[in-house]
Amino acid sequence: MDNREFRIPDLLLMKSSGEEYTDEQIQFLVTAICTPNSIHDCQLGALLMCIMLNGMTRREEVVLTRAMRDSGAVLRWPADWVMVDKHSTGGVGDKTSLALAPAVATLGLKVPMISGRGLMFTGGTLDKLESIPGYRVALTTEEMLETLREVGCCIVGQTEDIVPADRRMYTARDITATVNSFPLIVSSIVGKKAAESLKSLVLDVKFGRAAFMETQERAEMLAREMVEVGRGTGMRTTAFITRMDNPTGRHIGNALEVREALECLQGRGPQDFRDLVVNLGGELAFGGGVVGSEEEGRSVIERALDDGSARNTFCKMLQKQGVSAKVAEALCSDNPDYSHLPSAKHVTQVLAQGSGVVTSINAMTMAEVNLALGAGRNRAGDPINFGVGIVLHKVIGEKVGKGEAWAEIHHDIPLPNSLLNNMQEALTLDSSIDPFNMPSLVVSRVT
Amino acid sequence: MDNREFRIPDLLLMKSSGEEYTDEQIQFLVTAICTPNSIHDCQLGALLMCIMLNGMTRREEVVLTRAMRDSGAVLRWPADWVMVDKHSTGGVGDKTSLALAPAVATLGLKVPMISGRGLMFTGGTLDKLESIPGYRVALTTEEMLETLREVGCCIVGQTEDIVPADRRMYTARDITATVNSFPLIVSSIVGKKAAESLKSLVLDVKFGRAAFMETQERAEMLAREMVEVGRGTGMRTTAFITRMDNPTGRHIGNALEVREALECLQGRGPQDFRDLVVNLGGELAFGGGVVGSEEEGRSVIERALDDGSARNTFCKMLQKQGVSAKVAEALCSDNPDYSHLPSAKHVTQVLAQGSGVVTSINAMTMAEVNLALGAGRNRAGDPINFGVGIVLHKVIGEKVGKGEAWAEIHHDIPLPNSLLNNMQEALTLDSSIDPFNMPSLVVSRVT
Repeated sequence: MDNREFRIPDLLLMKSSGEEYTDEQIQFLVTAICTPNSIHDCQLGALLMCIMLNGMTRREEVVLTRAMRDSGAVLRWPADWVMVDKHSTGGVGDKTSLALAPAVATLGLKVPMISGRGLMFTGGTLDKLESIPGYRVALTTEEMLETLREVGCCIVGQTEDIVPADRRMYTARDITATVNSFPLIVSSIVGKKAAESLKSLVLDVKFGRAAFMETQERAEMLAREMVEVGRGTGMRTTAFITRMDNPTGRHIGNALEVREALECLQGRGPQDFRDLVVNLGGELAFGGGVVGSEEEGRSVIERALDDGSARNTFCKMLQKQGVSAKVAEALCSDNPDYSHLPSAKHVTQVLAQGSGVVTSINAMTMAEVNLALGAGRNRAGDPINFGVGIVLHKVIGEKVGKGEAWAEIHHDIPLPNSLLNNMQEALTLDSSIDPFNMPSLVVSRVT
Repeated sequence: MDNREFRIPDLLLMKSSGEEYTDEQIQFLVTAICTPNSIHDCQLGALLMCIMLNGMTRREEVVLTRAMRDSGAVLRWPADWVMVDKHSTGGVGDKTSLALAPAVATLGLKVPMISGRGLMFTGGTLDKLESIPGYRVALTTEEMLETLREVGCCIVGQTEDIVPADRRMYTARDITATVNSFPLIVSSIVGKKAAESLKSLVLDVKFGRAAFMETQERAEMLAREMVEVGRGTGMRTTAFITRMDNPTGRHIGNALEVREALECLQGRGPQDFRDLVVNLGGELAFGGGVVGSEEEGRSVIERALDDGSARNTFCKMLQKQGVSAKVAEALCSDNPDYSHLPSAKHVTQVLAQGSGVVTSINAMTMAEVNLALGAGRNRAGDPINFGVGIVLHKVIGEKVGKGEAWAEIHHDIPLPNSLLNNMQEALTLDSSIDPFNMPSLVVSRVT
C-alpha cells in the first residue's frame, strides 16, 4: 500500500517498544522531517516524546547527528584551513564568543561560528552583535569564505540550508516539552556544528540556577554524550563544565555585553569572563594543532588578548560583516568610543540595603530583570531593545557598604517597584567574611 | 504571558515525569483538543505517546472518559426508557450487532446503537447494513427518538456532535501508533457509549490471532479496565472475553453477513454466532432489569430469535432507517428473498486438498482475502464492494473430504493464485480425530 521504505507508525511502535533503530531507519525519519507532507506533526510530536522517554543508544545518537548534519548543506573549506569552533549551552552575561572567535583566529585557525538568537532567559550572540550599527549576521557562503580567508573568523546566523531538520524539530521540541531530551539536545547542537566541518570543537556546558542543566552531574552527563557524539561525527571534541549561578562578567544586556567583550579584547575586563575565553580558546589552540598543550594554548590566547591582536581581528571582522570602518575603529581603539552603541535613556543605581561581601547574585533574577527591561524576547521574532541592561558594580567576593551602589540598571521604561525588589533579593551579602577572589567558573574538563 | 488556565508544555512535562493529572487538567486538555488552535498537532502526538508510555491511573481514566463524553452532545431520553447497548472490539465475521439490537429491543429495552465503519481487517456494522438498499445510517436526533420509541432499537453512525474529542484523537492515534494504549482505548470506547446515556453496557472483548488483543490475559486486563471505567461513568458494565481465532459464523463480507444475521433472526444460522448473541443479549436483559438472572436473560433472547419477534423488530428498524417495506419484508420473510441484496458476479468453490476434521480456519487470512476482494477499506473513505466475501461450507469440528468444497469465494475480480493459496493455507485439517461440536466462543465474563 505504501511504496516508501518504512512506515512511520511502525517506526514509532519500535521506539515505543524500546527497540533500537537501524541507520537506515534514522536516516528515513530525518529525511521525512525535511520533506513536506512526509511526517505529520502528530507523528513528529509522538516521535520526540518517545525519544525523550525511551532514549537512544550512543550509536543511534551518532547516526541521528550525522543525518541531521547531512539534512542540508555541509560547509566545505580549502584543504589547508584548520576549522575550530565553540558552543555554549547558554548563560546570563555570557559574551564569550565575541572575544573567543577573534582571539583564536589570530593563531591562524579558522572559526566559522554559526550562532543563535536569544529566547527567554538566554541571551543570543547574534543579538549582541546586532547592537553594533551595521552588523550583518546573514553572510552568503562567498562572504563567509572571504571573511574567513582575510580575517580568520566570522559570527553569523544559521542559514536556511544548514541542518533544516533541526529547525522543524526545534520548533516542535519547544512546544512539546521535549527540549530536555539528551539525544535531541546532542543531535541538534552537534549536528549543527558538524555541518561546519570542524576539525575541533569545544563545548561550554553550564550548570547552576541559571543554566539549562541544574546540576553538575547532569551537565557532565550531557557533556560526555556530546563529546562522544562529536567524535563519532569526526570532530575532536572536548567540553568544559562551568558554573552558571551568578552572571558571567559585570555586564548584562546586548550593547553592554559588547562593551565588556571589547574590554576583554584589550586585555581588560572581568577575570571570570577572561578566564572562560582563555580556557576555551586554549583548548581550541591545542585541538587545532597550533600549540603542544592546553597550557600553552591558554598562554597564546592570553597574549592575543593582551597584545591587541584579537581586538584587531574583531575590528576587521566587524567591517567584513557590515560595520563601517569608522564605527569599528572607534569601538576597537585604546580609548573606545562607546557612543556608537545604542544606550538606554536612564541609568538607575541600585543601592545595597546592607553591607558585607557579595556571595551570590542570582543570575536567573538578572535574566528576568533584563528580559523585563526589553533586552530579550518572550517569543521568537519579538523586537529587542539593544541599549538596556544591567551593570554590576560589585561581583562575587567584593565588599559592598550599606547604601553603596552595587548595580545600575540601564532602562527606557519607568522601573516598577517589583523589579527593584527583585534586584535587591538577587543579592546575597555575608558580613562575617573577608573579600575573596572569585573562583574559576570552570569546574572540570570532559575529554 | 498566557491567560489560559494551564500551559500545554507544562502538562506534557508533568505526564512525561510520571505525575498524575488533576480533574481540571484533564478537562483542560480535552477541551483544548476540541477547540481549534488550542493544542498543536505536535503536542497532541506527544500527549498520546506520553499517555501510552507512562499510562494513567484508573481515576485519570474515569475523568478522561467523562471529559470525552462531555466534549459533545450527550443523548437524553425519556425517563421511563431503559437504555442498553453492546460494544465489541471487533472480529472477522462478527455480525452480532445486527441480531442483538432487535432481539434485546423485543424485551422493551431501548438500544440506541451508535456503530462504526470498517477499516483494514475489521468489518464495520454500518457497512454491513448499508449493503441493504436504502439503509440510512445518519438519523437525526428526532428520527432516532422516533425509531427507539416505535421499534426499540436503531443502528446509526456517529454524528459530528457526539464525542468530538474522540474524532481528532482517533485520527492522531491511528498515525502515531498509539491505538494500543489502554487509557486511550478505554476512554474512546466507553466515552462514546457513555454519550448514549446507557443504564447498562455489555462489552465483547475478543482475543486471538484476528483480534485487537492477541492474548486472553491482555483481553481480560482491557475488559477489567473498561468495566471499571464504565461503572465510573455511571453505567452498569460487564464484559465477555471471547475467542477470535476463527471467523465467527460462516459468512464473511457485507451482504453475506446480513444474510447470516437474518438467518439468526429466524432462529437458524451458525451456533457460535447465535451463542454470542444469546450471551451478550442475555446479559443486557439482566442488566436492563427485565429478567432476574443472566440465565433467564439468555432464555428470553433465544425465544425472541426463535419466535420471529426479533426478526419483526429488525424489519421495522430497517424501514425506519430508509429501507422500503418491500425490501425489508422480502428479507425478513420465512423464505427470505436475498436477491434484494448486492451479490458478486462470480462464485468460486475452494476444494479441500486433504481430508479430515477442521481444527482451524485462520480468521486473519479470511480478513485479508475479504479485503483483497474489495469488501473492506485500506483507507478511511475507500469505496466498498458489498456483494463480495467468503462463505465457509465447513467450520471448526466438521469433517471434510479431499476434493470437497470447504469454502466459496464471492468475487467480482479474477482471483489471483496467491489468494487461492492463502485460502488453502488458512485451513487446518486433522485426519486423526472425530468431528466435534465447536466450543463456545465465550471464555469468561468480567463483572
